[in-house]
Amino acid sequence: MAFSGSLMVAGTVASPFMRTPSLNSFSRRQLSVRASGSSEDDNDRKVAIRKEKGGSWKIDFTGEKPETPLLDTINYPAHMKNLSTNDLEQLAAELRADIVYSVANSGGHLSASLGVVELTVALHYVFNTPEDKIIWDVGHQAYPHKILTGRRSKMNTIRKTSGLAGFPKRDESVHDAFGVGHSSTSISAGLGMAVGRDLLGKKNHVIAVIGDGAMTAGQAYEAMNNSGFLDSNLIVILNDNNQVSLPTATVDGPASPVGALSSALTKLQASTKFRQLREAAKSMTKQIGGQTHEVAAKFDEYARGMINPAGSTLFEELGMYYIGPVNGHSVADLVSILCKIKDLPAPGPVIIHLVTEKGKGYPSAEAAADKMHGVNPFDVKTGKQAKSKAATLPYYKYFTNSLIKEAEVDSKIVAIHAAMGGGTGLNVFQKQFPDRCFDVGIAEQHAVTFAAGLATQGMKPFCAIYSSFLQRAYDQVVHDVDLQKLPVRFAMDRAGLVGADGPTHCGAFDVTYMACLPNMVVMAPADEAELMHMVATAAQIDDRPSCFRYPRGNGIGVPLPPDSKGIPIEVGKGRLLIEGERVAILGYGTIVQTCLRAAESLREHGVTVTVADGRFCKPLDTELIRMLATQHEILITVEEGSVGGFGSHVTNYLCLSGLLDGNLKVRSMVLPDRYIDHGAPDDQIEQAGLNPRHIAATVLSLLGRPKEAMHLS
Amino acid sequence: MAFSGSLMVAGTVASPFMRTPSLNSFSRRQLSVRASGSSEDDNDRKVAIRKEKGGSWKIDFTGEKPETPLLDTINYPAHMKNLSTNDLEQLAAELRADIVYSVANSGGHLSASLGVVELTVALHYVFNTPEDKIIWDVGHQAYPHKILTGRRSKMNTIRKTSGLAGFPKRDESVHDAFGVGHSSTSISAGLGMAVGRDLLGKKNHVIAVIGDGAMTAGQAYEAMNNSGFLDSNLIVILNDNNQVSLPTATVDGPASPVGALSSALTKLQASTKFRQLREAAKSMTKQIGGQTHEVAAKFDEYARGMINPAGSTLFEELGMYYIGPVNGHSVADLVSILCKIKDLPAPGPVIIHLVTEKGKGYPSAEAAADKMHGVNPFDVKTGKQAKSKAATLPYYKYFTNSLIKEAEVDSKIVAIHAAMGGGTGLNVFQKQFPDRCFDVGIAEQHAVTFAAGLATQGMKPFCAIYSSFLQRAYDQVVHDVDLQKLPVRFAMDRAGLVGADGPTHCGAFDVTYMACLPNMVVMAPADEAELMHMVATAAQIDDRPSCFRYPRGNGIGVPLPPDSKGIPIEVGKGRLLIEGERVAILGYGTIVQTCLRAAESLREHGVTVTVADGRFCKPLDTELIRMLATQHEILITVEEGSVGGFGSHVTNYLCLSGLLDGNLKVRSMVLPDRYIDHGAPDDQIEQAGLNPRHIAATVLSLLGRPKEAMHLS
Repeated sequence: MAFSGSLMVAGTVASPFMRTPSLNSFSRRQLSVRASGSSEDDNDRKVAIRKEKGGSWKIDFTGEKPETPLLDTINYPAHMKNLSTNDLEQLAAELRADIVYSVANSGGHLSASLGVVELTVALHYVFNTPEDKIIWDVGHQAYPHKILTGRRSKMNTIRKTSGLAGFPKRDESVHDAFGVGHSSTSISAGLGMAVGRDLLGKKNHVIAVIGDGAMTAGQAYEAMNNSGFLDSNLIVILNDNNQVSLPTATVDGPASPVGALSSALTKLQASTKFRQLREAAKSMTKQIGGQTHEVAAKFDEYARGMINPAGSTLFEELGMYYIGPVNGHSVADLVSILCKIKDLPAPGPVIIHLVTEKGKGYPSAEAAADKMHGVNPFDVKTGKQAKSKAATLPYYKYFTNSLIKEAEVDSKIVAIHAAMGGGTGLNVFQKQFPDRCFDVGIAEQHAVTFAAGLATQGMKPFCAIYSSFLQRAYDQVVHDVDLQKLPVRFAMDRAGLVGADGPTHCGAFDVTYMACLPNMVVMAPADEAELMHMVATAAQIDDRPSCFRYPRGNGIGVPLPPDSKGIPIEVGKGRLLIEGERVAILGYGTIVQTCLRAAESLREHGVTVTVADGRFCKPLDTELIRMLATQHEILITVEEGSVGGFGSHVTNYLCLSGLLDGNLKVRSMVLPDRYIDHGAPDDQIEQAGLNPRHIAATVLSLLGRPKEAMHLS
Repeated sequence: MAFSGSLMVAGTVASPFMRTPSLNSFSRRQLSVRASGSSEDDNDRKVAIRKEKGGSWKIDFTGEKPETPLLDTINYPAHMKNLSTNDLEQLAAELRADIVYSVANSGGHLSASLGVVELTVALHYVFNTPEDKIIWDVGHQAYPHKILTGRRSKMNTIRKTSGLAGFPKRDESVHDAFGVGHSSTSISAGLGMAVGRDLLGKKNHVIAVIGDGAMTAGQAYEAMNNSGFLDSNLIVILNDNNQVSLPTATVDGPASPVGALSSALTKLQASTKFRQLREAAKSMTKQIGGQTHEVAAKFDEYARGMINPAGSTLFEELGMYYIGPVNGHSVADLVSILCKIKDLPAPGPVIIHLVTEKGKGYPSAEAAADKMHGVNPFDVKTGKQAKSKAATLPYYKYFTNSLIKEAEVDSKIVAIHAAMGGGTGLNVFQKQFPDRCFDVGIAEQHAVTFAAGLATQGMKPFCAIYSSFLQRAYDQVVHDVDLQKLPVRFAMDRAGLVGADGPTHCGAFDVTYMACLPNMVVMAPADEAELMHMVATAAQIDDRPSCFRYPRGNGIGVPLPPDSKGIPIEVGKGRLLIEGERVAILGYGTIVQTCLRAAESLREHGVTVTVADGRFCKPLDTELIRMLATQHEILITVEEGSVGGFGSHVTNYLCLSGLLDGNLKVRSMVLPDRYIDHGAPDDQIEQAGLNPRHIAATVLSLLGRPKEAMHLS
C-alpha cells in the first residue's frame, strides 16, 4: 500500500489509515510508505522515511514536517498491539522523525528520547500501561512515551505555561506511573510498586528504565540491594549509552564517563562482539518454547553464560538476574526479550542491560559532543541551535569566570560538581585546572563529603550543585560540613524558580534549609557583579562553611569587577541601594532587581521608598535591619524562596530585639545554634534555655518585672 | 617479668612499668602478666588476662577492674611502635578487658569496639596518626582508638556533660581525622583526604574503616565508584561482622542481615575455609620480600586468586583492589597485611575485607541477640543491664503500639525503616505483621522513595526514621513524596536534642525543612497520648504526605487512649490547655510540658498565663493563633528546633495578617506554595507575585491607598 498525502496534523482523524476496516487487520499489513511534503511534486522530493535494503530505516531530515502515516494512527498503546515487527520498526522511525521535528521547533530534551525510541515502542507493545507500570528514571527520555500515550498533540506545549511537563508526571497521565526529574529514583519507586502489587495480590508488571549515568548514584545501589533481598518481580532496564554525566563533554569535546562503574559496563559490552550477541539473542528467543519453567532455566543459563562466563557481575552480586548486553535499537530483539521476561512466572528482580546511543538516528545529535542533550530550537538540516541574543552571560558563567580568577592566585582552590560540568560551567574551570576539578558523577552525597575531606587537608573546595539537587546531600551538608565547621563553599546554582525546567528543578528551599544550620554563612547576590564578589568572599571564609545561591538565567548587565576578580564583602554586611522614606523594601538575591523596579513604579505614585539588599541571610546585617525598622513605617522583605528563609530570619530578629513590640510582643524561643552544634549533656535542653525557669523569666521580663526575672533565670 | 599489684587507675603514673629504663627496651620484652584484684590474696584469685596454650588470650570477666599493665604504658600510638606481636596481642586483650569494665560502669556503645580491638591495635602499630588519617565510619567502634590516643583517663566521661564525644570528633583530638556519627561517609571523606594529600604532594596514608552495614548505604557505593576512577591511594577496611542493621535482631532473636550485599559477602567468606585462609595469609606475607614492585604484582595475584578464582567481586568492578577475607581478630595477620599495603608504592584504592565478630571476646555480648550494641551500665559477670526504672515507655514504643492498632484494622498500612528495627520499635510491628514491615538496611534514600512507590499503589506507608537521619533522604521527601502529593507518613523519631547521643544525632532541623514543603502536614505531639492520636491522624490523611516528630526519652504518664488506639485529630487544629491573661505561651511538641511548668512557676509570681499546644506547624491553627494574639499582650512560642520552624510560621502569619502591625508593619513576601508545586511557565516568578507591580501594590495598600494598589496588581 502506497499513498501520498498532504501534511497531516498529529492527532487529527484525517489520516487515510483511519479508513481501514479495522485496526487489527490494518496493523498486521506490511506497509510500504512513501511520505512527501505535498502531493503535487511527488517525484521531486525525497521519501522522508523508508526502509532500506538490509532492513534498516532511513530518515531524511529535511526540516519539513515528516509524514508519519503509521504514528498518526496510534493515540494510545492499545492501538499498537497488533502491529508486526516491521510495523513497529516503522513506528519507531516515524517517532524519531516526529521528535526531531517537534523539538527543533520548541526546544527541549532531544537526544535521550532519540536513544529510547525502539525501547519505548517495544515496552508499549509488550506491556499494558497503565496496569503495568513504567518508570522513566530522570525522565529526559520520556517524549516518545508521552507521544504514544495520548499526548502527541500537546508536545509543542512542553515547558510552556499550562503545557505538558518536561518529565513524566502523575497528574498528567495515568500512563506516568511516577513523577521524576531527579535522577536514580526509579528502582526504589518500582520496588515499592512491585511490593505493593504483591501485597494486594495483583499481577501487573513493573518496569524501571534507568541510564548508566543514573546508575552511579547511591540510591540506585541501595534499591538494587534491597530488590535482590526482597526478590519481588521487577524489571530494571539499564539504558547504557555511555553517558555518565549530563552531557559527557568537556569544552574540548566528548569525554570519557567518570566513575569506575563505566569500565565494568564496558567490560560487559566487550565480552562478546555485538552482532554475535544480537544473533545469539535472536536464535535464543526463537528456540525458547512455551514451557515456562524449563524456559526460565535455559534462558537464565544462556543469558548468563553468554555474557559473563567468568562469574557474576556487580548486578548479580546485588541479587539481580542479569541479561545482556542487548542491542537497544533492535525492536525485534527488545520485543523478544521483554516477551520472555513477561512470561516468566517468578523471575525476581531482573536487569536487562541495553546498549543504546544517545541521539541515535539523527546525525547532528550523534555527532555533537553533548549529543544535543537539551536544546534550543534548532535547524533540522544542520542541527544548528538558535542562539540566545542576550547581551549578558548566564549566571553560572560569571560564577566560573570569577572562580577561575580566585584559583589563579590560590592553588588550594578546587572545584567539585556532580555530573554537571556543562550546567555549572565548571568545564571551563576544568580546562584551565584539570587537576583541581572533580566530576564525581551523579553522586551529590559523595561530592559533599569528598569536599569535606579535601577541606580537612587545607584545600579550599567549591562545590557547585544546583539548589534542588543539593537537597540530595543535605545530611552531608549538615553532618560532614556544618557540624564540623569545615570550610566547604557551596555554589547553589538554579536557585529559586526555574521557569521551563519545572517544579522538579525548582530551588525554593535552599535558604531555609541552609540558614537553619549553626555555622553556615548564607549569601545571595543581587546581580552578577555581586556574585563575583561573593565568590571572592567565600574563597576568603576559611574557618567555616559558606554558600551562595544564584538563579537560572542571565545577568542584568551591571559593570563587572576589573579582570572579573571579585572583591570580598564584609561578612554579614548588606547594603542600602536607595534612600527613601516611610517604606523600606529589603530584597535578598536577584529579586532585589525586582524591588528596584517596584521602587520606580512607586515613584510614579509619588512614593519614594528605601531599597536595601540583604546580601546575607546568615549572619544577618542587624545594623541595617534595625535602621530600616526604626526609620520606616513599613518593611517588606522579598525573596525567591520558601517560608523559613530570609524573611523569617529578619522577622525573628525584629521580634527578639523588640523592634516589633506594639500591642503584642512576640518572642520565638528556639534551639540556639551553639546547643545544636556543641556538646551532648543529658541536661542540654535545660541548658539551651528551653526550661521552665527561662520561659517564666522571659515572661516576667516582658511584663516589666526584671528583678523577679533575674532571680528565676 | 611477673608482678602483682593493687588496682591501678588508668592514666596514673603509679604503674610499675613507668619505672622501666626505656619504653623501647621494655616493650620488646615478652611479658607474662598476672593481674589480680589485690596483693593480699594473690593465690585465691584468677589471673584476669592470660595467654593460653595454643596462643589465644583469655580474659576472666569478674567485674573487678582488670589489671592492664601493658595498656597502662600506652598513652599514645608512639608508645606501641616497638611492641612485639605477642605484646600487641596482649595489648588487645587488655584493651578488650578495659573497655568491658569501663562501659559496664558508664554505659555506651560496647560491642562494635570489642570487634575492632585487634584492628585498632594493628592500625596504630603500622600507621602513624595524626599524619596518617584513620576515619572510623559511624564511630561506634572508636573506643579503643580513643583509649590509644590519649583519652583513656576520660573514657568515663563519654556521653556526659563536657565529656568525651561518643564518636570521633575533630575538635577533640588530632587523631580524629573526621567527625562521624552518621553512617557511610568514611570512604568519601577518605578519598577527599587522599586527593588533598596528592595535590599537596604529601605522602601520608589514609584509611577508612567501614562496616558491612554501612556498606549498604548508597554513599559508600558512590565513593567507591569515584575512588576506582580517581585511583588515588586509599585503604578501605571493610569490617564485615554480619551486622547490616543496628542491631541485627528482631524481637525473636538474631536475624539475617537484610540486603543482597550480605550474600555476596558471605559468598566471599565461604570461598575458602577460614583457617586455610589465615594460614595462607601468613605464608604469603612471609614469602614477600622487599622488592616492592614484584611484591605488588605477586601479592595482587595471590590475594585475588586465593579468594575469588572465578573472577571479580563487586568491589573490583567498582575499581577497588580487593584483598580478603582476612581474620580480623588476628593481630599478626592484620599487621602483616597492613605493612605490605603500606609499603606498596601506588596500590590505588584497596579494600581489605576483614571478618570480625561484634562483641568478640566478651561472652555476654557474643551471646546477646543485639550483641550488646548500645548498653546501659551492666553487670560484667552476667552482662545484665541496669533497667530503666521509668514508669512509662520510651516514645517510640507508644508510636509502635498505636501503629499496630491502626494496622490491625487497615490492611493497607505498611511500615518501613532503615536498619533501625530496634530503635524505632518497628521490630514489634514486624512480629505481628511480618509481611508488612520492611527493613531496607542503612538506605534512607531508598526507604523514602520505596515508600512513595508503595503509596502509588494505594498502600499506606509509615516511614519511621530518626529526625537527623531523615536529612539523608531530604531530596526524596521533597521530590518523590511532597511534590507528587503522595500520602507517605513520616514518623520522625529522636526529634530535638538527644542528650547523650550528641550533636551528630540532634534532630534540630526537621520542622524547618519539612514545613517549607508545599504539601506536607507537619505535626508534633505534646505527650504520648497525643502521639497516638497523631498516628491515627496520619493514617487517615490519605491525600497528601504527613509527618510527626517525637523525642528521645520516655512518655510523661498521661492516660492513654483505650486499647492504645488513637483518635484522629482535626488537621490544623491546636488546643488551649490553660486560659490565663495578658500572656500566652504557645508550645509545639513535647516542649509543651515545659511551657506548662513555666506557667506553674509564673503562678507563684501571681501571673496566670494562657498555655496552648500548637500541634500543627502546617497547616497552622490560625484561629487559635489569632485568638492568642488579639487577647494577650505577650505571645511566646517555644519549640525544640532551629530557626525557620514553628515560631517562624507563627510570626509569618502574624505579620501577614497585620496582627503585629504597630509603629512598624512587616510583610515577608516569599514563594507561595502553589507556585513551588505546580507548573513551569517562563513567567512563573511574575505569576507568583514576586513582580514589581505586586510589591508596589502591597506598599500602596499598606500606605492606605487601596485604589491605586488595586489598579497596579
